[in-house]
Amino acid sequence: MNFMEEKILDEGEVKQGHILKVGSFLNHQLDVAFLADVGKAFYDHFGGRGINKILTVEASGIAIACMTAPYFHVPVLFAKKSKSHNLDAEVYSSVVHSYTYDMDNTLTVSKRYLTAEDRILIVDDFLAAGAAMKGLLALCEQAGASVEGIGVAIEKGFQGGGDKLREKGYDVCSLAIIDAMSAEGIRFR
Amino acid sequence: MNFMEEKILDEGEVKQGHILKVGSFLNHQLDVAFLADVGKAFYDHFGGRGINKILTVEASGIAIACMTAPYFHVPVLFAKKSKSHNLDAEVYSSVVHSYTYDMDNTLTVSKRYLTAEDRILIVDDFLAAGAAMKGLLALCEQAGASVEGIGVAIEKGFQGGGDKLREKGYDVCSLAIIDAMSAEGIRFR
Repeated sequence: MNFMEEKILDEGEVKQGHILKVGSFLNHQLDVAFLADVGKAFYDHFGGRGINKILTVEASGIAIACMTAPYFHVPVLFAKKSKSHNLDAEVYSSVVHSYTYDMDNTLTVSKRYLTAEDRILIVDDFLAAGAAMKGLLALCEQAGASVEGIGVAIEKGFQGGGDKLREKGYDVCSLAIIDAMSAEGIRFR
Repeated sequence: MNFMEEKILDEGEVKQGHILKVGSFLNHQLDVAFLADVGKAFYDHFGGRGINKILTVEASGIAIACMTAPYFHVPVLFAKKSKSHNLDAEVYSSVVHSYTYDMDNTLTVSKRYLTAEDRILIVDDFLAAGAAMKGLLALCEQAGASVEGIGVAIEKGFQGGGDKLREKGYDVCSLAIIDAMSAEGIRFR
Protein backbone atom coordinates (compact mmCIF):
# COMPACT_ATOMS: atom_id res chain seq x y z
CA MET A 1 0.00 0.00 0.00
CA ASN A 2 1.46 3.41 -0.93
CA PHE A 3 1.31 6.71 0.98
CA MET A 4 -1.82 7.94 -0.83
CA GLU A 5 -3.76 4.74 -0.22
CA GLU A 6 -2.77 4.81 3.46
CA LYS A 7 -3.89 8.43 3.79
CA ILE A 8 -7.25 7.66 2.19
CA LEU A 9 -7.83 4.75 4.57
CA ASP A 10 -6.73 6.85 7.56
CA GLU A 11 -8.67 10.03 6.84
CA GLY A 12 -11.14 9.48 3.98
CA GLU A 13 -14.85 8.86 4.49
CA VAL A 14 -17.08 7.14 1.97
CA LYS A 15 -20.50 8.78 1.64
CA GLN A 16 -23.67 7.95 -0.28
CA GLY A 17 -23.47 8.47 -4.04
CA HIS A 18 -19.87 7.39 -4.63
CA ILE A 19 -18.56 10.37 -2.72
CA LEU A 20 -15.18 10.10 -1.01
CA LYS A 21 -14.66 12.89 1.52
CA VAL A 22 -10.99 13.86 1.80
CA GLY A 23 -11.49 17.37 3.15
CA SER A 24 -8.96 16.86 5.93
CA PHE A 25 -5.99 16.86 3.53
CA LEU A 26 -6.87 17.29 -0.16
CA ASN A 27 -9.71 19.64 -1.01
CA HIS A 28 -10.72 21.80 1.94
CA GLN A 29 -8.04 21.58 4.57
CA LEU A 30 -4.74 21.01 2.75
CA ASP A 31 -1.93 18.95 4.25
CA VAL A 32 0.87 20.72 2.38
CA ALA A 33 3.64 18.38 3.58
CA PHE A 34 1.61 15.46 2.23
CA LEU A 35 0.90 17.34 -1.01
CA ALA A 36 4.63 17.94 -1.43
CA ASP A 37 5.02 14.13 -1.36
CA VAL A 38 2.37 13.99 -4.09
CA GLY A 39 4.36 16.48 -6.14
CA LYS A 40 7.55 14.47 -5.60
CA ALA A 41 5.79 11.31 -6.80
CA PHE A 42 4.68 13.11 -9.98
CA TYR A 43 8.24 14.34 -10.49
CA ASP A 44 9.60 10.81 -10.05
CA HIS A 45 7.20 9.66 -12.77
CA PHE A 46 7.24 12.60 -15.20
CA GLY A 47 10.63 14.23 -14.65
CA GLY A 48 12.95 14.39 -17.65
CA ARG A 49 10.20 14.90 -20.21
CA GLY A 50 10.86 18.56 -20.84
CA ILE A 51 7.71 19.68 -19.05
CA ASN A 52 7.66 23.48 -18.89
CA LYS A 53 4.25 24.17 -17.33
CA ILE A 54 1.76 22.50 -15.02
CA LEU A 55 -1.91 22.92 -15.90
CA THR A 56 -4.81 22.37 -13.53
CA VAL A 57 -8.30 23.70 -12.86
CA GLU A 58 -9.52 25.77 -9.94
CA ALA A 59 -10.00 25.32 -7.05
CA SER A 60 -8.50 22.29 -5.29
CA GLY A 61 -6.24 21.36 -8.22
CA ILE A 62 -4.30 24.55 -7.52
CA ALA A 63 -2.92 23.14 -4.27
CA ILE A 64 -1.50 20.00 -5.86
CA ALA A 65 -0.15 21.97 -8.80
CA CYS A 66 1.62 24.46 -6.52
CA MET A 67 3.20 21.68 -4.46
CA THR A 68 4.33 19.89 -7.65
CA ALA A 69 5.72 22.79 -9.69
CA PRO A 70 8.79 23.48 -7.49
CA TYR A 71 10.19 20.02 -8.31
CA PHE A 72 9.97 20.81 -12.04
CA HIS A 73 11.03 24.47 -11.62
CA VAL A 74 8.12 25.55 -13.82
CA PRO A 75 5.05 27.78 -13.41
CA VAL A 76 1.48 26.63 -12.85
CA LEU A 77 -1.45 27.66 -15.01
CA PHE A 78 -4.95 27.11 -13.68
CA ALA A 79 -8.04 27.10 -15.87
CA LYS A 80 -10.86 29.24 -14.54
CA LYS A 81 -14.40 27.96 -14.20
CA SER A 82 -16.97 30.37 -15.44
CA LYS A 83 -20.74 30.18 -15.68
CA SER A 84 -20.62 32.50 -18.64
CA HIS A 85 -20.45 31.39 -22.26
CA ASN A 86 -19.83 34.99 -23.13
CA LEU A 87 -16.08 34.93 -23.62
CA ASP A 88 -13.63 37.23 -25.27
CA ALA A 89 -11.25 36.31 -28.05
CA GLU A 90 -8.27 36.21 -25.72
CA VAL A 91 -9.07 32.80 -24.19
CA TYR A 92 -9.37 29.16 -25.13
CA SER A 93 -12.52 27.65 -23.66
CA SER A 94 -14.22 24.30 -23.21
CA VAL A 95 -17.63 23.48 -21.72
CA VAL A 96 -17.56 20.65 -19.16
CA HIS A 97 -20.33 19.08 -17.17
CA SER A 98 -19.86 18.81 -13.40
CA TYR A 99 -21.51 15.66 -12.08
CA THR A 100 -20.93 16.77 -8.49
CA TYR A 101 -23.01 19.91 -8.98
CA ASP A 102 -25.02 18.79 -12.06
CA MET A 103 -24.22 21.93 -14.02
CA ASP A 104 -22.13 23.07 -16.96
CA ASN A 105 -18.99 25.09 -16.42
CA THR A 106 -16.85 26.74 -19.03
CA LEU A 107 -13.12 26.27 -18.47
CA THR A 108 -10.97 29.06 -19.81
CA VAL A 109 -7.28 29.86 -20.08
CA SER A 110 -5.67 32.92 -21.54
CA LYS A 111 -4.10 32.38 -24.97
CA ARG A 112 -1.13 34.29 -23.63
CA TYR A 113 -0.19 31.53 -21.16
CA LEU A 114 -0.92 28.36 -23.13
CA THR A 115 0.82 28.05 -26.51
CA ALA A 116 2.07 25.56 -29.09
CA GLU A 117 5.51 25.75 -27.47
CA ASP A 118 4.24 24.32 -24.17
CA ARG A 119 4.93 20.79 -22.91
CA ILE A 120 2.24 20.32 -20.30
CA LEU A 121 1.78 18.15 -17.23
CA ILE A 122 -1.90 18.20 -16.21
CA VAL A 123 -2.59 17.53 -12.52
CA ASP A 124 -5.80 17.32 -10.52
CA ASP A 125 -7.04 16.00 -7.20
CA PHE A 126 -9.70 13.63 -8.60
CA LEU A 127 -10.28 11.79 -11.85
CA ALA A 128 -13.69 10.12 -12.08
CA ALA A 129 -15.68 10.14 -15.33
CA GLY A 130 -13.02 12.49 -16.68
CA ALA A 131 -15.16 15.47 -17.66
CA ALA A 132 -12.85 18.12 -16.21
CA MET A 133 -9.81 16.33 -17.65
CA LYS A 134 -11.40 16.26 -21.11
CA GLY A 135 -11.93 20.00 -20.79
CA LEU A 136 -8.28 20.59 -19.90
CA LEU A 137 -7.14 18.38 -22.80
CA ALA A 138 -9.40 20.36 -25.15
CA LEU A 139 -7.74 23.59 -24.03
CA CYS A 140 -4.30 22.11 -24.75
CA GLU A 141 -5.45 20.91 -28.15
CA GLN A 142 -6.82 24.35 -29.06
CA ALA A 143 -3.48 25.87 -28.11
CA GLY A 144 -1.45 23.21 -29.91
CA ALA A 145 0.33 22.43 -26.64
CA SER A 146 1.61 18.90 -26.14
CA VAL A 147 0.37 16.94 -23.12
CA GLU A 148 3.32 15.00 -21.68
CA GLY A 149 1.36 13.37 -18.88
CA ILE A 150 -1.53 13.46 -16.43
CA GLY A 151 -0.97 13.24 -12.67
CA VAL A 152 -3.93 12.49 -10.42
CA ALA A 153 -4.09 12.11 -6.65
CA ILE A 154 -7.18 9.85 -6.53
CA GLU A 155 -8.75 8.07 -9.48
CA LYS A 156 -12.21 6.59 -9.13
CA GLY A 157 -11.36 3.64 -11.36
CA PHE A 158 -14.93 2.36 -11.28
CA GLN A 159 -16.08 5.45 -13.18
CA GLY A 160 -13.83 4.65 -16.13
CA GLY A 161 -12.44 8.07 -17.02
CA GLY A 162 -8.81 7.12 -16.37
CA ASP A 163 -8.93 3.95 -18.45
CA LYS A 164 -10.45 5.81 -21.40
CA LEU A 165 -7.55 8.25 -21.28
CA ARG A 166 -5.03 5.39 -21.13
CA GLU A 167 -6.69 3.77 -24.15
CA LYS A 168 -6.14 7.03 -26.01
CA GLY A 169 -2.44 6.81 -25.20
CA TYR A 170 -2.13 9.28 -22.35
CA ASP A 171 0.29 8.45 -19.54
CA VAL A 172 -2.01 8.77 -16.51
CA CYS A 173 -0.23 8.46 -13.16
CA SER A 174 -2.84 8.07 -10.41
CA LEU A 175 -1.43 7.68 -6.93
CA ALA A 176 -4.49 5.71 -5.81
CA ILE A 177 -7.02 3.99 -8.05
CA ILE A 178 -10.24 2.98 -6.32
CA ASP A 179 -11.96 0.07 -8.02
CA ALA A 180 -14.79 -0.18 -5.52
CA MET A 181 -15.89 1.62 -2.37
CA SER A 182 -18.72 1.51 0.12
CA ALA A 183 -19.27 2.21 3.80
CA GLU A 184 -17.70 -1.22 4.42
CA GLY A 185 -14.41 -0.45 2.76
CA ILE A 186 -12.33 0.64 -0.21
CA ARG A 187 -10.74 -1.68 -2.76
CA PHE A 188 -7.69 -0.28 -4.53
CA ARG A 189 -6.49 -1.54 -7.90
CA MET B 1 11.29 49.17 -3.91
CA ASN B 2 10.69 45.58 -2.73
CA PHE B 3 10.38 42.39 -4.78
CA MET B 4 6.57 42.59 -5.01
CA GLU B 5 6.56 46.20 -6.20
CA GLU B 6 9.22 45.36 -8.79
CA LYS B 7 7.21 42.39 -10.06
CA ILE B 8 4.06 44.52 -10.36
CA LEU B 9 5.91 47.16 -12.36
CA ASP B 10 7.56 44.50 -14.56
CA GLU B 11 4.52 42.36 -15.30
CA GLY B 12 1.32 44.07 -14.11
CA GLU B 13 -1.04 45.94 -16.40
CA VAL B 14 -3.45 48.63 -15.25
CA LYS B 15 -6.85 48.40 -16.94
CA GLN B 16 -10.00 50.52 -16.88
CA GLY B 17 -12.00 50.39 -13.64
CA HIS B 18 -9.14 50.12 -11.13
CA ILE B 19 -8.21 46.67 -12.39
CA LEU B 20 -4.61 45.52 -12.06
CA LYS B 21 -3.91 42.47 -14.22
CA VAL B 22 -1.30 40.20 -12.66
CA GLY B 23 -2.27 37.00 -14.43
CA SER B 24 1.32 36.24 -15.42
CA PHE B 25 2.36 35.40 -11.84
CA LEU B 26 -0.40 35.74 -9.22
CA ASN B 27 -3.89 34.70 -10.24
CA HIS B 28 -3.93 32.74 -13.48
CA GLN B 29 -0.40 31.68 -14.29
CA LEU B 30 1.39 31.21 -10.96
CA ASP B 31 5.10 31.91 -10.55
CA VAL B 32 5.63 29.46 -7.71
CA ALA B 33 9.25 30.48 -7.03
CA PHE B 34 8.05 34.05 -6.62
CA LEU B 35 5.12 32.94 -4.46
CA ALA B 36 7.56 31.07 -2.21
CA ASP B 37 9.29 34.42 -1.66
CA VAL B 38 5.88 35.83 -0.71
CA GLY B 39 5.44 33.00 1.79
CA LYS B 40 8.92 33.65 3.19
CA ALA B 41 8.09 37.35 3.65
CA PHE B 42 4.93 36.42 5.57
CA TYR B 43 6.95 34.04 7.72
CA ASP B 44 9.53 36.75 8.44
CA HIS B 45 6.68 38.99 9.62
CA PHE B 46 4.37 36.53 11.37
CA GLY B 47 6.70 33.72 12.49
CA GLY B 48 6.86 33.05 16.23
CA ARG B 49 3.20 33.85 16.91
CA GLY B 50 2.05 30.28 17.40
CA ILE B 51 0.13 30.22 14.12
CA ASN B 52 -1.21 26.70 13.55
CA LYS B 53 -3.28 27.15 10.38
CA ILE B 54 -3.39 29.36 7.31
CA LEU B 55 -6.82 30.42 6.09
CA THR B 56 -7.62 31.73 2.62
CA VAL B 57 -10.45 31.70 0.11
CA GLU B 58 -10.62 29.90 -3.23
CA ALA B 59 -9.34 30.20 -5.89
CA SER B 60 -6.16 32.24 -6.25
CA GLY B 61 -5.60 32.60 -2.49
CA ILE B 62 -4.90 28.87 -2.42
CA ALA B 63 -1.64 29.31 -4.31
CA ILE B 64 -0.23 31.88 -1.88
CA ALA B 65 -1.43 29.87 1.12
CA CYS B 66 0.22 26.68 -0.18
CA MET B 67 3.53 28.45 -0.79
CA THR B 68 3.38 30.04 2.68
CA ALA B 69 2.34 27.06 4.81
CA PRO B 70 5.60 25.06 4.49
CA TYR B 71 7.52 27.85 6.29
CA PHE B 72 5.12 27.59 9.23
CA HIS B 73 4.82 23.77 9.03
CA VAL B 74 1.03 24.08 9.27
CA PRO B 75 -1.94 23.09 7.08
CA VAL B 76 -3.99 25.40 4.87
CA LEU B 77 -7.75 25.76 5.07
CA PHE B 78 -9.56 27.40 2.18
CA ALA B 79 -13.08 28.78 2.42
CA LYS B 80 -15.32 27.69 -0.41
CA LYS B 81 -17.42 30.12 -2.41
CA SER B 82 -20.93 28.98 -2.97
CA LYS B 83 -23.89 30.56 -4.70
CA SER B 84 -26.19 28.68 -2.39
CA HIS B 85 -27.53 30.02 0.90
CA ASN B 86 -28.82 26.57 1.57
CA LEU B 87 -26.18 25.28 3.94
CA ASP B 88 -25.99 22.45 6.38
CA ALA B 89 -25.25 22.73 10.08
CA GLU B 90 -21.69 21.50 9.65
CA VAL B 91 -20.29 24.78 8.31
CA TYR B 92 -19.67 28.36 9.34
CA SER B 93 -20.78 30.75 6.61
CA SER B 94 -20.63 34.41 5.70
CA VAL B 95 -22.18 36.25 2.76
CA VAL B 96 -19.78 38.59 0.93
CA HIS B 97 -20.30 40.83 -2.04
CA SER B 98 -17.87 40.50 -4.95
CA TYR B 99 -17.30 43.88 -6.58
CA THR B 100 -15.38 42.25 -9.44
CA TYR B 101 -18.39 40.15 -10.47
CA ASP B 102 -21.13 42.27 -8.81
CA MET B 103 -22.70 39.29 -7.04
CA ASP B 104 -23.03 37.79 -3.59
CA ASN B 105 -21.07 34.70 -2.62
CA THR B 106 -21.40 32.68 0.53
CA LEU B 107 -18.05 31.69 2.05
CA THR B 108 -18.10 28.46 4.02
CA VAL B 109 -15.69 26.39 6.08
CA SER B 110 -16.34 23.13 7.85
CA LYS B 111 -16.71 23.44 11.61
CA ARG B 112 -14.42 20.44 11.82
CA TYR B 113 -11.41 22.38 10.51
CA LEU B 114 -11.83 25.80 12.16
CA THR B 115 -12.12 25.81 15.94
CA ALA B 116 -11.59 27.93 19.05
CA GLU B 117 -8.15 26.33 19.45
CA ASP B 118 -6.90 27.76 16.14
CA ARG B 119 -4.43 30.63 15.81
CA ILE B 120 -4.96 31.78 12.26
CA LEU B 121 -2.94 33.62 9.66
CA ILE B 122 -5.25 34.80 6.86
CA VAL B 123 -3.62 35.28 3.46
CA ASP B 124 -4.98 36.42 0.11
CA ASP B 125 -3.73 37.74 -3.20
CA PHE B 126 -5.64 41.04 -3.15
CA LEU B 127 -7.11 43.31 -0.50
CA ALA B 128 -9.24 46.14 -1.90
CA ALA B 129 -12.49 47.19 -0.19
CA GLY B 130 -11.99 44.20 2.08
CA ALA B 131 -15.26 42.33 1.47
CA ALA B 132 -13.68 38.87 1.17
CA MET B 133 -11.43 39.58 4.17
CA LYS B 134 -14.42 40.60 6.27
CA GLY B 135 -16.04 37.30 5.33
CA LEU B 136 -12.98 35.32 6.41
CA LEU B 137 -12.80 37.26 9.69
CA ALA B 138 -16.49 36.52 10.30
CA LEU B 139 -15.81 32.80 9.87
CA CYS B 140 -12.98 32.99 12.44
CA GLU B 141 -15.21 34.89 14.84
CA GLN B 142 -17.99 32.31 14.52
CA ALA B 143 -15.47 29.56 15.29
CA GLY B 144 -13.89 31.50 18.15
CA ALA B 145 -10.50 31.19 16.39
CA SER B 146 -7.96 33.95 17.03
CA VAL B 147 -6.63 35.88 14.04
CA GLU B 148 -2.90 36.44 14.55
CA GLY B 149 -2.36 38.35 11.35
CA ILE B 150 -3.34 39.07 7.76
CA GLY B 151 -0.88 38.67 4.89
CA VAL B 152 -1.71 40.19 1.52
CA ALA B 153 0.26 40.20 -1.72
CA ILE B 154 -1.22 43.39 -3.19
CA GLU B 155 -3.32 45.94 -1.32
CA LYS B 156 -5.27 48.54 -3.25
CA GLY B 157 -4.71 51.19 -0.62
CA PHE B 158 -6.95 53.69 -2.40
CA GLN B 159 -9.97 51.44 -1.71
CA GLY B 160 -9.46 51.68 2.04
CA GLY B 161 -10.10 48.11 3.16
CA GLY B 162 -6.61 47.58 4.60
CA ASP B 163 -6.61 50.78 6.63
CA LYS B 164 -10.00 49.94 8.14
CA LEU B 165 -8.62 46.60 9.29
CA ARG B 166 -5.53 48.31 10.78
CA GLU B 167 -7.80 50.75 12.65
CA LYS B 168 -9.53 47.73 14.17
CA GLY B 169 -6.18 46.50 15.44
CA TYR B 170 -5.35 43.78 12.91
CA ASP B 171 -1.73 43.37 11.87
CA VAL B 172 -2.04 43.60 8.08
CA CYS B 173 1.19 42.86 6.21
CA SER B 174 0.75 43.87 2.57
CA LEU B 175 3.80 43.35 0.37
CA ALA B 176 2.74 46.16 -1.95
CA ILE B 177 0.24 48.92 -1.20
CA ILE B 178 -0.96 50.84 -4.22
CA ASP B 179 -2.12 54.35 -3.37
CA ALA B 180 -2.90 55.35 -6.94
CA MET B 181 -2.77 53.76 -10.36
CA SER B 182 -3.59 54.61 -13.94
CA ALA B 183 -2.38 53.77 -17.41
CA GLU B 184 0.40 56.30 -16.76
CA GLY B 185 1.80 54.55 -13.73
CA ILE B 186 1.48 53.13 -10.24
CA ARG B 187 2.21 54.97 -6.99
CA PHE B 188 3.14 52.76 -4.05
CA ARG B 189 2.75 53.82 -0.42
